[in-house]
Amino acid sequence: MIRTVQWADGKVRIIDQTKLPAQEVYLDIDDYQELARAIREMRIRGAPALGVAAAYGVALGAFQVQAATKEEFLAGLHDVISTIGATRPTARNLFWALERMQRVAEQAPDVGTARARLLSEALRMEREDEEINRAIGRHGAALILDGFRVLTHCNAGALATVAYGTALGVIRAAVEDGKRVHVYIDETRPLLQGSRLTAWELIQDGIPATLVTDNMAGHFLRRGQINCVVVGADRIAANGDVANKIGTYTLAVLAHENGVPFYVAAPTSTIDLSTATGDDIPIEERDPAEVTHLDGKQIAPEGITAANPAFDVTPHRYVSAIVTEKGVLRPPYGPALARAVSNEE
Amino acid sequence: MIRTVQWADGKVRIIDQTKLPAQEVYLDIDDYQELARAIREMRIRGAPALGVAAAYGVALGAFQVQAATKEEFLAGLHDVISTIGATRPTARNLFWALERMQRVAEQAPDVGTARARLLSEALRMEREDEEINRAIGRHGAALILDGFRVLTHCNAGALATVAYGTALGVIRAAVEDGKRVHVYIDETRPLLQGSRLTAWELIQDGIPATLVTDNMAGHFLRRGQINCVVVGADRIAANGDVANKIGTYTLAVLAHENGVPFYVAAPTSTIDLSTATGDDIPIEERDPAEVTHLDGKQIAPEGITAANPAFDVTPHRYVSAIVTEKGVLRPPYGPALARAVSNEE
Repeated sequence: MIRTVQWADGKVRIIDQTKLPAQEVYLDIDDYQELARAIREMRIRGAPALGVAAAYGVALGAFQVQAATKEEFLAGLHDVISTIGATRPTARNLFWALERMQRVAEQAPDVGTARARLLSEALRMEREDEEINRAIGRHGAALILDGFRVLTHCNAGALATVAYGTALGVIRAAVEDGKRVHVYIDETRPLLQGSRLTAWELIQDGIPATLVTDNMAGHFLRRGQINCVVVGADRIAANGDVANKIGTYTLAVLAHENGVPFYVAAPTSTIDLSTATGDDIPIEERDPAEVTHLDGKQIAPEGITAANPAFDVTPHRYVSAIVTEKGVLRPPYGPALARAVSNEE
Repeated sequence: MIRTVQWADGKVRIIDQTKLPAQEVYLDIDDYQELARAIREMRIRGAPALGVAAAYGVALGAFQVQAATKEEFLAGLHDVISTIGATRPTARNLFWALERMQRVAEQAPDVGTARARLLSEALRMEREDEEINRAIGRHGAALILDGFRVLTHCNAGALATVAYGTALGVIRAAVEDGKRVHVYIDETRPLLQGSRLTAWELIQDGIPATLVTDNMAGHFLRRGQINCVVVGADRIAANGDVANKIGTYTLAVLAHENGVPFYVAAPTSTIDLSTATGDDIPIEERDPAEVTHLDGKQIAPEGITAANPAFDVTPHRYVSAIVTEKGVLRPPYGPALARAVSNEE
């Protein structure tokens, strides 16, 4: 199975997701600013993968910072963390990873120890991510019955994590349990993570799937052809509101209207108890050219204005359950999320 | 203003909509089979435009049919009508036009008169279509208040009709009344009629607009940034259920959920009293390559299966009003539609 982000020969190795599915290109990155650029350009994306990539970025930066004292080191590391933190505002996991790395740096007695511990912390986060995804899969698989047709959006698969995936992890675990599952994949404009990445992963796994454009999902939900919806998350507010790839809110409303369960699969590192509700989550606005162009080719007339919010917010009332590595959380989400975060194993 | 379909120099002249917005290419067609192919390939599309194009196709075919007697002529014309009727199953206007032309042929005393009357009937339908659209616009403009942000889907503009448009006709009429209107345009995958055609029309008219991908509409509806939705229709069943471009149902549910009015603008020729409910409307399935490819370029991995329903059905309970040339119809739609159709002026 593919590894989206890993440490190899003293560098961070990522698969360049802007090139998939046409080409399988790996980038070896040894400079934190280059890594920040790769995140901004979405060569690596997906909230859990961004968390691990950010941790490796700090580890790289820790070796790049010139510092004689721990104070100088922490000042230099502050710039590293700020640079990486400025790439993408919505994914909670990115900030969660940066905060965790910051604490490791602060607690180290000296610069050399700090550098070593930062690298081993990032390595640990890489390892943990796959274990967490497999736990999410185990918990979530119970929600998928034999013969289910499952709709997913964007890519919450191996490519959005270190390996295995969150939403696709749930589907993979159900398939590993011997259940027959058919996946409907939203193509997910503008950047087509569904058709480019999720379709590619499912073909590799031999899991049957049907690709649809984003505006077709409602048609299949209305006709009773979808048994449940499973998506990932970029940030979950304290009340259970979920920020995820643009289009997720629409699916949640359509599922609700048609009596179809709507599940969110995410590690507890996606939960942000300091954000009270979805309205407090910053929504990244990306370049309108992603909408007016596809693969560099202009598809809309010259002079048209386009909007490009990369995420939307799904109010918690539409969310049937949140599947985490700690178990399946049900409403009321306030206490359930607080318990899941505080209950560190 | 552009004319989408017209009679010129003994031929049917259409603007090739597959080439827009990059190129403004006109096709002069003098063979009914070529016209049927142009309809199938969506060089001309939009229910009202298909009605007029189908009528011209029959007029062309009437001159192509070799016949010594009226019986031979009607038999030949039957093949012409079958060929044109087999192009696209959902748009009611296509069949409405074919039935109207059939009646004209049957009532003519001889072949020569039939040919002449068929051509003048098609010319009359071209002229009527623009008048009807302007009447739809006048009635619908009252629904659009000054400062409204109006969401539309696909293209229900001049390019979907002979001229002026249905949904865009309502918007144009509101603008002509001096109201400030900002249009949000769904790009409308897979064939991008929103970004290619609606955006092009609104730029030409100088009406301010923002292009969004189909999965963004929900985000803007939830945030209160849309005051109403206006779309066209391909067929309206006797109970008010509406078949329209795939994605319309999704917008209707999202509008309903957010308390935003959802309007359908269509001529009475789109109403099909012989179809009881939306479930009885045939939904055209198009080539999956339209989903896996864009502009001839493959955008999904080799081997993925794709679905491509071209339309969906919006149950009448989500429809706030149906704007026709006879006036604005409100629920209960059963009697309102029957009255609108029977009340021939």
